Amino acid sequence: MSAPGQERIEARLVELGITLPQRRTPSIAHLVKTARTGDLLFVSGHGPRDQVGEIVHKGKLGAELTTAEGQDAARLCVLGCLSSVRDALGSLDRVRRVVKATGYIASDPGFFEQPQVMNGASDTLIDIFGEHGQHSRVAIGVAVIPHNMAMEVEMILEVD
Amino acid sequence: MSAPGQERIEARLVELGITLPQRRTPSIAHLVKTARTGDLLFVSGHGPRDQVGEIVHKGKLGAELTTAEGQDAARLCVLGCLSSVRDALGSLDRVRRVVKATGYIASDPGFFEQPQVMNGASDTLIDIFGEHGQHSRVAIGVAVIPHNMAMEVEMILEVD
Amino acid sequence: MSAPGQERIEARLVELGITLPQRRTPSIAHLVKTARTGDLLFVSGHGPRDQVGEIVHKGKLGAELTTAEGQDAARLCVLGCLSSVRDALGSLDRVRRVVKATGYIASDPGFFEQPQVMNGASDTLIDIFGEHGQHSRVAIGVAVIPHNMAMEVEMILEVD
Repeated sequence: MSAPGQERIEARLVELGITLPQRRTPSIAHLVKTARTGDLLFVSGHGPRDQVGEIVHKGKLGAELTTAEGQDAARLCVLGCLSSVRDALGSLDRVRRVVKATGYIASDPGFFEQPQVMNGASDTLIDIFGEHGQHSRVAIGVAVIPHNMAMEVEMILEVD
Repeated sequence: MSAPGQERIEARLVELGITLPQRRTPSIAHLVKTARTGDLLFVSGHGPRDQVGEIVHKGKLGAELTTAEGQDAARLCVLGCLSSVRDALGSLDRVRRVVKATGYIASDPGFFEQPQVMNGASDTLIDIFGEHGQHSRVAIGVAVIPHNMAMEVEMILEVD
Repeated sequence: MSAPGQERIEARLVELGITLPQRRTPSIAHLVKTARTGDLLFVSGHGPRDQVGEIVHKGKLGAELTTAEGQDAARLCVLGCLSSVRDALGSLDRVRRVVKATGYIASDPGFFEQPQVMNGASDTLIDIFGEHGQHSRVAIGVAVIPHNMAMEVEMILEVD
């Protein structure tokens, strides 16, 4: 695992060929995508949306969706989070480390591969942030995600 | 949106005609309603209870409960949280900002309006705290909330 | 409730006859069991595993499992968390206080005793840390926990 310096995350995105999605205007003005307190940035739950904000993966894992589709959804959730982080900080170079990522995964009662799904999020964070992307993690299977999205990821970051 | 000064939240409550519910004695002595670390106050999950601690909304959204009832439940959860915050701090005037609110909403598998329900919580926070009430947010649909409550809200605040 | 000094937690474990489980090597190298930021230690979700990492309680509360079994599961989740905390800090004596514990409990839709189940976690924390073990808490019933585990507990600690 290569560990990019903390000033090189934006360059790393280019290297990886990753374009973050455009930020969607929140539907209600007072709901913010990130909130900062001290050195911590709390990132709201983000779903699997594409570059223009359309939901990509709908339905439940283990029913309408495969684990591989879930992994793609997890990756898109992370990119959505990071898009909001960049909006808040100006640049991802100001991220010191990822502290925590929580994945809420819409799951059929018989589906148990939430960790594999969430690896799609964790792998993306490590690809981008290297060792600074290592995070504590929770992955659980829930009944329903808003808009019938496959999943949602929220994060806590330590920032400059 | 008017932004009340940080010393005027208690006055703002009066202005809005909001009376916070009485604090219920926790059923077990070691379970605390709030826990402080540094400038952060972590608020335990609170359900939709009335002034004397009785549960107001039971059942699942999309089955026994409508979205409008859910919004009322969300508002009551927030008022319960704030009652515990006042108990901990002496006054809501010591709240600097709302950092995060998480809503766990008991949901029928076919109910997708968790964001609308959670707006009942967000709107209440903005009514009371103005711009300092802006928060990162997570709203998910879960299988069951204790005591068959409709939902539960937990919060993180930055405090003086 | 006796309140052990903050330098005496390891001694308290011996006194209570508690042996923490061995740490399991995470299945993926970049997923860390704890992540520190400032004075806060975020602990990943831990399930009910025995001393060698085998899952003890599988299935859903209210279906395959009783509340008493759930309480035992909650205790094992906490011991797993603390094992990872000791790995991170060298000693539990460096824990200043437990700030928050969240229990995600796999639940049959008709099972409402999540608080009683979670008391198995809270009681264990108080037994070990005394008043420093008092924590804000969330307990919710979710659809599925990875590997069909009965539940999962995540924690936030304030540490030296």
